[in-house]
Amino acid sequence: MRDAYQEQMSALNTVLGQMVEEVGRAMEMSTRSLLEADLELAERVISDHDAIAEQSVEAEDLAFKLMALQAPVAGDLRSIVSGFQLVSEIDRMGALALHVAKVARRRHPAKVLPEEVAGYFEEMGRLAVELAHNAHRVLESQDYHDALSLMDDDDAMDDLHRHLFTVMMDREWEHGVSAAVDVTLLGRYYERYADHAVLIARRVVFQATGKTPEQLLEAS
Amino acid sequence: MRDAYQEQMSALNTVLGQMVEEVGRAMEMSTRSLLEADLELAERVISDHDAIAEQSVEAEDLAFKLMALQAPVAGDLRSIVSGFQLVSEIDRMGALALHVAKVARRRHPAKVLPEEVAGYFEEMGRLAVELAHNAHRVLESQDYHDALSLMDDDDAMDDLHRHLFTVMMDREWEHGVSAAVDVTLLGRYYERYADHAVLIARRVVFQATGKTPEQLLEAS
Repeated sequence: MRDAYQEQMSALNTVLGQMVEEVGRAMEMSTRSLLEADLELAERVISDHDAIAEQSVEAEDLAFKLMALQAPVAGDLRSIVSGFQLVSEIDRMGALALHVAKVARRRHPAKVLPEEVAGYFEEMGRLAVELAHNAHRVLESQDYHDALSLMDDDDAMDDLHRHLFTVMMDREWEHGVSAAVDVTLLGRYYERYADHAVLIARRVVFQATGKTPEQLLEAS
Repeated sequence: MRDAYQEQMSALNTVLGQMVEEVGRAMEMSTRSLLEADLELAERVISDHDAIAEQSVEAEDLAFKLMALQAPVAGDLRSIVSGFQLVSEIDRMGALALHVAKVARRRHPAKVLPEEVAGYFEEMGRLAVELAHNAHRVLESQDYHDALSLMDDDDAMDDLHRHLFTVMMDREWEHGVSAAVDVTLLGRYYERYADHAVLIARRVVFQATGKTPEQLLEAS
C-alpha cells in the first residue's frame, strides 16, 4: 500500500512539475508577444491554454485516486491536499499568462507598452519565468531550503512593480490614460503570477517539513 | 462514524458560512470607506482582517479532522477537498476587501474616486456584498439551483467593470493618470471578488450533485 502511495504521489508531482514548466513557457511567450507585438505568439499562448486546463483535471484525478487508497496516513493526507492547492496555484499562473497574451492581441498591431516601461516588463517577464522554473525545481526536489530561498525572489518583482507606478505617476507621463490602464493591469498580472509561485514554494515547505515557513523560522 | 462525519461536516460549513459573511461585511465597509474617505472604517477592515485569517486556520483544521475520520467514502472526500478550496476562495475575497480599504487609507483625506465613477463603485460594492451574502446562503442550504443562479449574478459585475473602462478611455478623462491607475486596480479588485463568489457557487454545485455546472447542463 505504501509503495502504491509513493508511486502515485510521485506521478502527481511529475504532472504538477510539467504544468508549472508549461505556465512558465506560456509567460515567456506572452511577454515576447507583448514586447514585440507578435500576434502569432499571443495566439499560440491562447490556444495552448486548454492543454493546461486538461492537465489540471488529470492532476486532480490523480490526487483523488491517492485519497481513495486505503487509509493513507495523516501526513500523506496533508500532502494530497497540498496537491489540490498546487493545482489551483498553477492554474492561476496559466490564467495570468493568458491575460497578458490577450492584452497583446487586443492592441495588435500596435505595441501595448510605451518605450519607457518596456524594459520593466522585459525584466518582470524574465523574473516570472525564472520563478516558474524554480517552482518546478523545488516541486521535484522537495528541498525546503531551496523553497525558502525561492520565497525571497518575489521581492525583486515587487520592487519592479512599485517602480512601474512611480514612472506612471511621478514623471511626465505622455502616453495617455489608455496606456496607463494597460500598464497597471499588466503590472498586476506579473505581480500576482510571482505571488502564486511563492505560494507553491510555501506548500513545498509544508509538504517537506509538515511546518509553515513561519513555524520553521520560530523553531530555528 | 457516519454521524461523526455529518456533524463535523456541518460544523465546517458553518465556519465557512461565517467566513463568507464576514468578508461580505468587510467589502461593505471597504466600499463605504472608499466612497466617503472614511479612515476609521478603512482601519477597521484592516485590523479585522487577522480574524478572518484565524478562521481560515480553524476551517482547515476542521477539514483535516474530517479526513482523519476512519475511511470516509469517496463522495465525502470530494466534499472535504471542496472545503479546503472554499477556504482559499473566501480568503482571497477577504484579501481583496483589504486591498480596497488600503487604497482608501493611502489616499486619505482625499477621496480616491472622481465623482463620475463613484456611482459605479457604489453599485459594484452593493453587488459584491450581495454575492457574498448569496454565497453564504447556498453554502448553508447546499441548494444547487440557487447556486447555479448565483453564477449569473456575476454578469452584472462584469458589465459595470467594462463600463468603467469606457468612462476612463473614451470620454475626456480629466482626473489624471494617478486616478486612472487607482480606478483600474479597484475595478479589478471588485471583479475578482465577484469571480471568487462564483467559484464558491460552482463548488457548492459540485458538493451537492457530484457534477460540475457544465456536466449538469449536458445531462439536462
